[in-house]
Amino acid sequence: MFRESQQREGFVPLYNIRTDLALEAKEIVQTHTAAEIPGVLSENLQEDGIAISRMQVQTEQAAQQLGKSVGRYLTLEAPGLRRKDARLQDRVSEVLARELLNFLELPSDLNQTVLVVGLGNWNVTPDSLGPKVIEDLLVTRHAVSGGQKILGEGFRSVCAISPGVLGTTGMETGEIISALVARVKPSLVIVIDALAARRLERLHTTIQVADSGISPGSGVGNNRLGINRQTVGVPVVAIGVPTVVDASTIASEAFDALAEYFKKDARGLALTNVLKDFDWERRRMLITQVLEPYAGGRLMVTPKETDAFIEDMAYVISGALNAALHPRVHSESSEKYLQ
Amino acid sequence: MFRESQQREGFVPLYNIRTDLALEAKEIVQTHTAAEIPGVLSENLQEDGIAISRMQVQTEQAAQQLGKSVGRYLTLEAPGLRRKDARLQDRVSEVLARELLNFLELPSDLNQTVLVVGLGNWNVTPDSLGPKVIEDLLVTRHAVSGGQKILGEGFRSVCAISPGVLGTTGMETGEIISALVARVKPSLVIVIDALAARRLERLHTTIQVADSGISPGSGVGNNRLGINRQTVGVPVVAIGVPTVVDASTIASEAFDALAEYFKKDARGLALTNVLKDFDWERRRMLITQVLEPYAGGRLMVTPKETDAFIEDMAYVISGALNAALHPRVHSESSEKYLQ
Amino acid sequence: MFRESQQREGFVPLYNIRTDLALEAKEIVQTHTAAEIPGVLSENLQEDGIAISRMQVQTEQAAQQLGKSVGRYLTLEAPGLRRKDARLQDRVSEVLARELLNFLELPSDLNQTVLVVGLGNWNVTPDSLGPKVIEDLLVTRHAVSGGQKILGEGFRSVCAISPGVLGTTGMETGEIISALVARVKPSLVIVIDALAARRLERLHTTIQVADSGISPGSGVGNNRLGINRQTVGVPVVAIGVPTVVDASTIASEAFDALAEYFKKDARGLALTNVLKDFDWERRRMLITQVLEPYAGGRLMVTPKETDAFIEDMAYVISGALNAALHPRVHSESSEKYLQ
Amino acid sequence: MFRESQQREGFVPLYNIRTDLALEAKEIVQTHTAAEIPGVLSENLQEDGIAISRMQVQTEQAAQQLGKSVGRYLTLEAPGLRRKDARLQDRVSEVLARELLNFLELPSDLNQTVLVVGLGNWNVTPDSLGPKVIEDLLVTRHAVSGGQKILGEGFRSVCAISPGVLGTTGMETGEIISALVARVKPSLVIVIDALAARRLERLHTTIQVADSGISPGSGVGNNRLGINRQTVGVPVVAIGVPTVVDASTIASEAFDALAEYFKKDARGLALTNVLKDFDWERRRMLITQVLEPYAGGRLMVTPKETDAFIEDMAYVISGALNAALHPRVHSESSEKYLQ
Repeated sequence: MFRESQQREGFVPLYNIRTDLALEAKEIVQTHTAAEIPGVLSENLQEDGIAISRMQVQTEQAAQQLGKSVGRYLTLEAPGLRRKDARLQDRVSEVLARELLNFLELPSDLNQTVLVVGLGNWNVTPDSLGPKVIEDLLVTRHAVSGGQKILGEGFRSVCAISPGVLGTTGMETGEIISALVARVKPSLVIVIDALAARRLERLHTTIQVADSGISPGSGVGNNRLGINRQTVGVPVVAIGVPTVVDASTIASEAFDALAEYFKKDARGLALTNVLKDFDWERRRMLITQVLEPYAGGRLMVTPKETDAFIEDMAYVISGALNAALHPRVHSESSEKYLQ
Repeated sequence: MFRESQQREGFVPLYNIRTDLALEAKEIVQTHTAAEIPGVLSENLQEDGIAISRMQVQTEQAAQQLGKSVGRYLTLEAPGLRRKDARLQDRVSEVLARELLNFLELPSDLNQTVLVVGLGNWNVTPDSLGPKVIEDLLVTRHAVSGGQKILGEGFRSVCAISPGVLGTTGMETGEIISALVARVKPSLVIVIDALAARRLERLHTTIQVADSGISPGSGVGNNRLGINRQTVGVPVVAIGVPTVVDASTIASEAFDALAEYFKKDARGLALTNVLKDFDWERRRMLITQVLEPYAGGRLMVTPKETDAFIEDMAYVISGALNAALHPRVHSESSEKYLQ
Repeated sequence: MFRESQQREGFVPLYNIRTDLALEAKEIVQTHTAAEIPGVLSENLQEDGIAISRMQVQTEQAAQQLGKSVGRYLTLEAPGLRRKDARLQDRVSEVLARELLNFLELPSDLNQTVLVVGLGNWNVTPDSLGPKVIEDLLVTRHAVSGGQKILGEGFRSVCAISPGVLGTTGMETGEIISALVARVKPSLVIVIDALAARRLERLHTTIQVADSGISPGSGVGNNRLGINRQTVGVPVVAIGVPTVVDASTIASEAFDALAEYFKKDARGLALTNVLKDFDWERRRMLITQVLEPYAGGRLMVTPKETDAFIEDMAYVISGALNAALHPRVHSESSEKYLQ
Repeated sequence: MFRESQQREGFVPLYNIRTDLALEAKEIVQTHTAAEIPGVLSENLQEDGIAISRMQVQTEQAAQQLGKSVGRYLTLEAPGLRRKDARLQDRVSEVLARELLNFLELPSDLNQTVLVVGLGNWNVTPDSLGPKVIEDLLVTRHAVSGGQKILGEGFRSVCAISPGVLGTTGMETGEIISALVARVKPSLVIVIDALAARRLERLHTTIQVADSGISPGSGVGNNRLGINRQTVGVPVVAIGVPTVVDASTIASEAFDALAEYFKKDARGLALTNVLKDFDWERRRMLITQVLEPYAGGRLMVTPKETDAFIEDMAYVISGALNAALHPRVHSESSEKYLQ
């Protein structure tokens, strides 16, 4: 019944913990190995309430260990985002715009089109990040490429779509993107998606940018085919925000606290020994039993205020994209050009 | 400034009245010519509060006269639909399902895919009919074609998308559809769109089905490229509901009433004579002057209750499509299979 | 069938033109009388793309002539608001905040509560202005009055509600407000409502503030009982934005253009004479006949882009109210405090 | 920091588990006492996929033990409701209508008004059940009481409101209801609210009806003042559906599975003994530590598909209420009368 852990997409292989964040995958592996992971480079900065992490997974072996593809991962964390702080939102948007400019390596020719795809389902709030970002994106291909130049100089050719999910379209998202790439011939595809995280405190406070695109099975809406350079034919950069946690992860965290607690407790020495034997797979099975009645152990949970958090993160990301893609748009004035 | 009337898409050429309904185009021409139009065949039925009209535009000349393409047009009118009559909604849905079965000439092989496209903009209520219909459509391609056969026998392979409009995607809707047709290779494309009508009483009470697809410039969201067999490569059937009236149409109708009124009035004999001279083009110019300050004479208006009417019509059409496309779905029980 | 014109609320009595704007009522009367109206004082300013009009209806006779109650009316017009100009939105918001501070005569004691009521129906877009403003309002009564003072100094006690409309509640809005006033004992009630205008170009570009509250029968949702100092027991200030035009108004404007046109046309002299006789009441009857099939002559129409315009105007008004009501909130930074 | 468990509203006192369902409170107490609870009567039926439970908390002592008020509790459970089974929805709606008729003891005089209040926040999906039910309610007071009798015989006087939550209104919901009761003088108040449950499988599948109204601190939106006969002055019946689970509950369930697991495991005998000592309060503290970073241990989680489930449950409840309140409405045809 249980698929082998190394096949479970979105899970850190050895530890069977669900996360789409490379940063968390690294944390999990390091917690248990207490060592640097060969083939993973990383650099961390603190800037004005925002933690910036730049990470490279350089070898296939490191990729296997983390359950994340080879590639570059940029992560911004700003815990304050959940406090509706409009100034912090603008600051994160600016920092993200700056980091995207470095990360994306955009062509200098503004007539080369960028296709932005909002993954996910409009009608499932925690899965609606992608469509919401697209809604506020400054789309210009019809004005720029057509030679109409209504907007004036300084705008890149950008087009965008929110194609929906397999269950509502009957088409894999990857199929739809490939079809559009064949027609529109963009030089870059950017996909926006809602992600799953391990830690509740990362929901709606963290943004991950990855040049490896979308792995099969990751994302909230579960895109079954990968969306990346191999499948689509042009570079694919994924921008994601965690909006759900696997219910089994919450339970798993409680086990960790239990183990930790017993360490300090004299009476619990024998207990700690038993728990040590109680390996990840058995732990996972137990948890699955608990949650089985609901959704076969794959229940995703989300804070009840998710509606407002999603709006805020869509605002941050669309603002950053508008500024990064269009030289003329400065992040503080981007809304002026929106229609 | 004013384009020549014969070039104005969606307008009945000689009379310069905006309508996407072939039925109204014919009415307008006949009001003024008081004769049958050569090359146009039509048949009308009354059935239980629903007026059914089947019309064929057979010659290029007739098409020019009406401002509608050569092809078949099916129109259902049920004025009662604006009274929130749930039973009438179900009845119209059933009649539409039956008529669609005749009209669509579906292949007997259920594995041949039908692609349904909801045109229009989610965020502009009178333009959201297409996306709303897609939302309630029974989409099966991923379950049927994949050999998974989860649903059992009797379901046709159906896929669907609401691609958005040019202003939000930067891509012509026709481009997106062509790209998907090249990839998915459906045997039929069905497009759903909101239309403009001449008469206010037809808004949200009328459904038009046409095998000529979508003409360039028609529809509420104004699709600039045509979407039809020529542009897309497979047969295209358009299903539409009028949701807006051109503001100039309202004014124009008032002029007609004025002329009519003066006919009966002794004092107004001279007046009638002058009005007779007052031809359509000058009338239109006058009206344009009136409405100029707002939107250059192309203001579309909609009843304020449009939100609820759109919901109802989307329910009627999605129900009819589910029943017509899937042998296993009977229109009265279609919702049972929805996810 | 037709009610006497002097009883038709929201109409300018003699001329039978529907408008909730005092400014337009004055325009209409002056167009026909070509003179100042006794008992009406007005002052007009231009400021940076915004036309400000301050008007006083001082006598019962003037009130009768205009079809507007005795009281003060402040009107802001900014045609640019329909172009999605974010800077103009902020500027209008600031000017409105400043004008409201003069207009409202707020008590210096911040513990005296202001009750803000969003009239209208969430589910009818052109009628949803009130609820949308309430959504972005900085509500503080529970934090200020309770002595909790979480927010710190400088916040007025503000509470707010969007009660819905008669058809969805079964209660007159005036009943609900009176009930809340009896319980909460505010020193001022502010009601926000969508209005009807005569001129299409005023939709979504004009804001009216009136200290006479809401007249019975005015507003889009048609509040049958008046909501004003007499009925509610405390001062009532109404803030409104026109979002619909009566369809008959559009037709009526076309008649005016016709009459104007014939003035210049030699052939049309006799015609002008007849039209002169063709008085307002007969004109209105004609128009009613035209629109009868739809909604008995009371059809309200709205631009199809009304969804986006409503959002913008709600943003402008809630920003201005937050700044005017709370000394600590400056209109440019008000969003920071929103939850 | 931690409030005493007996003061924590919505929690079963001794066991510190959060649930608003009397049925679950009883289950929890019985799991640990393995005996009938004195002062609690209950009766259970199975009917066509629906489990019906009728329970009476008869004594203050039983109320204390359960953490639920003295009163009658009716609970319907239909696990199939999460499978989008339209027929089951209709069946549950009919059974609920029938049970409500017995439970409500409505006055035979149809002119005595019933006030239905939809608690919760429109903009927080799992908290929007109340407003969604109100939206589909057949409201008649304005037509019935006014002597207008538009609807004909057989309709009870019903009015309704969705007042919003403390954070958006600045007024306690209880204040608003009391104000309206003083004005409208209904003979009964029905409140609709989203609830918290212990077990994930009960979310969106369970309906509770209680004649004790709403306890302070229960409900998703956390109504701080009670809403019941004592505070409001007329009988108050609460209808609720669980839509969230406290995150700590999920973790707690995992502990139970752990203990259960070790029972069967020879190695784990010592462990079981330690766990036995590990009492509820310490367990809760541990879990609180785990979830602290997120929301101080009071994080509510909800399935990601909650948007669709809420729609379905609102449909079931509004249908049942329309049928129970209005003799003329049979649950299968109720939608016909909706406006």
